[in-house]
Amino acid sequence: MPTVARAYVAPSPGTDLAPGTVERRDLGDFDVMIANRFVGICHSDIHTARGDWESVNYPVVVGHEIAGVVEAVGDLVTRYAVGDRVGVGCFVDSCRECSSCRAGEEQYCHKGATSTYNSFGCDGLPTAGGYSTHIVVDHNYVLRIPDGVRLEAAAPLLCAGITMYSPLRTWRAGPRKRVAIVGMGGLGHMGVKLASAMGAEITVLSQSLKKQEDALRFGATSYYATSEPATFEYLKGQFDLIINTVSADIEVDAYLSLLALGGTMVLVGLPSKPLSQRAWSLIEMRRNLAGSKMGGIRQTQEMLDFCGAHGLGAEVEIIRAEQINEAFQQVLASDVRYRFVIDAETF
Amino acid sequence: MPTVARAYVAPSPGTDLAPGTVERRDLGDFDVMIANRFVGICHSDIHTARGDWESVNYPVVVGHEIAGVVEAVGDLVTRYAVGDRVGVGCFVDSCRECSSCRAGEEQYCHKGATSTYNSFGCDGLPTAGGYSTHIVVDHNYVLRIPDGVRLEAAAPLLCAGITMYSPLRTWRAGPRKRVAIVGMGGLGHMGVKLASAMGAEITVLSQSLKKQEDALRFGATSYYATSEPATFEYLKGQFDLIINTVSADIEVDAYLSLLALGGTMVLVGLPSKPLSQRAWSLIEMRRNLAGSKMGGIRQTQEMLDFCGAHGLGAEVEIIRAEQINEAFQQVLASDVRYRFVIDAETF
Repeated sequence: MPTVARAYVAPSPGTDLAPGTVERRDLGDFDVMIANRFVGICHSDIHTARGDWESVNYPVVVGHEIAGVVEAVGDLVTRYAVGDRVGVGCFVDSCRECSSCRAGEEQYCHKGATSTYNSFGCDGLPTAGGYSTHIVVDHNYVLRIPDGVRLEAAAPLLCAGITMYSPLRTWRAGPRKRVAIVGMGGLGHMGVKLASAMGAEITVLSQSLKKQEDALRFGATSYYATSEPATFEYLKGQFDLIINTVSADIEVDAYLSLLALGGTMVLVGLPSKPLSQRAWSLIEMRRNLAGSKMGGIRQTQEMLDFCGAHGLGAEVEIIRAEQINEAFQQVLASDVRYRFVIDAETF
Repeated sequence: MPTVARAYVAPSPGTDLAPGTVERRDLGDFDVMIANRFVGICHSDIHTARGDWESVNYPVVVGHEIAGVVEAVGDLVTRYAVGDRVGVGCFVDSCRECSSCRAGEEQYCHKGATSTYNSFGCDGLPTAGGYSTHIVVDHNYVLRIPDGVRLEAAAPLLCAGITMYSPLRTWRAGPRKRVAIVGMGGLGHMGVKLASAMGAEITVLSQSLKKQEDALRFGATSYYATSEPATFEYLKGQFDLIINTVSADIEVDAYLSLLALGGTMVLVGLPSKPLSQRAWSLIEMRRNLAGSKMGGIRQTQEMLDFCGAHGLGAEVEIIRAEQINEAFQQVLASDVRYRFVIDAETF
């Protein structure tokens, strides 16, 4: 018999989230039932709940930055036990057969990984995310949260954290690597913390200098306002890697000009319009423009362990479920330092 | 006293090239005087001669695919001797001090490498290219042509060859790497030969199938017409590396969709308009869009030696100087297999 969990539900596009319930499937042999403790509010949650993006299957329960505690396990689960501290990120299944899945890069599953919400699970039913008291997930898609990381600080790692960690690893952030993080929000602030722990030299490029003090405290070595045209002149050719967390439309040529020979600018946010740049901006200094999407399960666990080893976690503001709609507005206004996490006991 | 060399000169924009002369500077201590033997016709020559690109300092002598024989050397030149088979490519000097120059990547010199033509040399005088009987070049910017490569087949290596070789090395073409070469012209056909010698699996993507037989002979394993929409469907996600030699405006998203996880598309041609693509095309499979410009002196020598070791050279049609204007028209119409080289004795 399925479990009915309390949840906050988006009933239709443009409507506020409201209290409700969601059914969780019976525990399969390899399933883990998690009692959610904290759930981060990611931009994607807001866009999905509001119906800004592709087709949404309403009513929808969003949330893919989930930290909790194992409440029950299926008969054949050996990896997790009741009481374990665990997390769930952006996807809860994938085909497990394509070359991406075999390479542990399930986020690039050729058949499309099963998103934690607004997708369809292996049971054919719509998936429902973490804005709820419980979730049931196949053990292969459950992460272990190390002891050193508080659950509220861990939740945002499951999306914001891994989305930054993966490109930092792919493009080898480390000592003597000059890394710029564009945008100082949920993703950006984790980028600073992670790149700092990797030993990179970090510059934050943000619209204003409002968050400069925080960034330096998190490990950035310098901070510039992109609203200041002199920034682009001054920093020309200075970076090996730029990670752009901003989804707003940007002048790509201007950012590419900040890259040194062979440097790469990575997009992790999704602007609404196509990007445009002169070919010369790439050819001039053998520059690269790339994209990166979350990270695979193996790398997500590596990231969590890395955070445990380095004492890293997200900076969060804990809210109650009834504050979600207000928090959505604040997120859209960039008025949060740096991630809202919902106390799941208040659903 | 400067040497006066016979040359073919572009007198003004939109005017045919005509016989004339060019002065070559007195041999400096480190200079090499080269008796040119064969000079390739590159698209850049045509655009510069016609004034299609940025400011051109008329009259101009173009040509940067030069193969010849050393006729004299400066007092302190020990590396080259009279009679040596040598070449000159796209640049004849650079600042020698910036990080690019120190890394042997002079083509990315921060002060701008001194182009072989339409630039200004260390003497402050306009540089003049290879459409002439002689050229004087600092020994550091002279390449040695290995015995195994005929001079007429070597000339196009100095631009077309290195422009392909460098990205093939940067993005590690080799066994089990699936490489697509877009465009089967002067650059493309060298890309096929070089990538084949490196052991890569090569697909040519060309507008039509006209050059298929040649491509297979040069080492391609398959060949598809880009005019056929099914090509893009069929080859989705199939390549690790795409090198686009075509300067025409292309639909970037369509080409990016052909890349496998982590693949890179490299631009070596310069379209007139900015390129545009959806961020999702990059993020979806952690794809890269990059640019690459020629290669440094060290790598150009490596490429020539590689061609010598593998018996590679460009496919050329040898013409006389008085055929240059006609040849320009043919190049613009893609009616050449695969590079015109001018017999320098006919200047």
